[in-house]
Amino acid sequence: MIDLHYSATPNGQKIAIMLEEIGADYRVIPYDIFEGDQLSAEFGRINPNHKLPAIVDHAPAEGDEAVTVFESGAILQYLAEKAGRFLPRSVGARAATLSWLTWQVAGLGPMGGQASHFLRYAPQGQDYAIERYTKEVNRLLTVLERRLRTSPYVAGEDYTIADMAIWPGRASAFVMGMGLDDWPAMHDWFERIRRRPAVERAMERADHKAPAKYVGRHQTLNEREWSNMFGDANHAAVKGD
Amino acid sequence: MIDLHYSATPNGQKIAIMLEEIGADYRVIPYDIFEGDQLSAEFGRINPNHKLPAIVDHAPAEGDEAVTVFESGAILQYLAEKAGRFLPRSVGARAATLSWLTWQVAGLGPMGGQASHFLRYAPQGQDYAIERYTKEVNRLLTVLERRLRTSPYVAGEDYTIADMAIWPGRASAFVMGMGLDDWPAMHDWFERIRRRPAVERAMERADHKAPAKYVGRHQTLNEREWSNMFGDANHAAVKGD
Repeated sequence: MIDLHYSATPNGQKIAIMLEEIGADYRVIPYDIFEGDQLSAEFGRINPNHKLPAIVDHAPAEGDEAVTVFESGAILQYLAEKAGRFLPRSVGARAATLSWLTWQVAGLGPMGGQASHFLRYAPQGQDYAIERYTKEVNRLLTVLERRLRTSPYVAGEDYTIADMAIWPGRASAFVMGMGLDDWPAMHDWFERIRRRPAVERAMERADHKAPAKYVGRHQTLNEREWSNMFGDANHAAVKGD
Repeated sequence: MIDLHYSATPNGQKIAIMLEEIGADYRVIPYDIFEGDQLSAEFGRINPNHKLPAIVDHAPAEGDEAVTVFESGAILQYLAEKAGRFLPRSVGARAATLSWLTWQVAGLGPMGGQASHFLRYAPQGQDYAIERYTKEVNRLLTVLERRLRTSPYVAGEDYTIADMAIWPGRASAFVMGMGLDDWPAMHDWFERIRRRPAVERAMERADHKAPAKYVGRHQTLNEREWSNMFGDANHAAVKGD
């Protein structure tokens, strides 16, 4: 049994998809990040960085001690190695998969997150930051579009954890007014993955918990929600239990 | 022979350290990112995202086709798997190494990069962004400090690629006025790693190429340098050769 500590963000959805793809025995433990569920000392013992998702694998491949993994990119790799699927073993294909997986978790993901922050939550008047991040996301999506024009999946011929890492971000692109119609190769790739039974199951099982605050521009958070997400409560959680 | 496409940033330094740690046969191919060397169509065939570092391994473990890897986190893993070192094989230690490696490339690295951008290069008046990113870096370093109080290396008992990923970022912390003296466990860990012969060799061999523009606050770039780093030339590179 694997515990998936989850909120319905693209990072959480990546892991739900992978768990369905490998047919894992898992349960979803939902967190409301606006309420600050992830700031508890208890969750800090699973992920000292207090971010979701994280997993606890109670039946790891080796030993009988439960294994904890945090950061969506690391979790995808852990599960791929456990299942022996979706992370190629051959040197070239594996290098491509790790390169594109890391491109998402270190590039498109964080930059999309910053664009989303300034469009949704930051006070008005942050035009410089909004332009910086929407342009960078646009640049990164151009890289992806060009890649998918010559390759059916992002790492090559096969569907891998790199595709699973990128696919759920469509919601953020939508907030930035970037419709998939402008990116034909990405649109085709997106639809092919959307129709995978495991992806459909993952989105049904996990996605309905996304609160309205996750989507749309210019969200108004109350003081406590702001503190949990971006302010003092958020910063204090890591300082001690 | 491995080609290291390199600029003297923390991301480049991570790979120089790893190449020295495993005793790899490599050569450094330096890029001046302010001059836009990384925007060439030729480099786009190595990394379609036009970012450094990247490697080309002309003697991969398998086959005779050269293998290209981009994104520092992916390169560290590729080299660890090639050498069979610094990425544990046992399930628990491997999960911890991947979690902390990804924590750096997806968290501390990008957030440090944003803080650095707003402190060094952005126009004046970006107080909201400066506060956002310096506080987040502080939060992340608190997570690291607490981890290193109970663990000699970030992933546990052994020095791994996760340590190599984090170590070179000290320069960014310095720009933010975060001296290591405020973080005793980090300070001790930093010094232990600094004294490793491979780290000394890497910093000697690769570090002297860092131009002055990489360090210190409030840098003034000329129009062409700004365009290469953050503006039109930067965005145009990915649109076609």
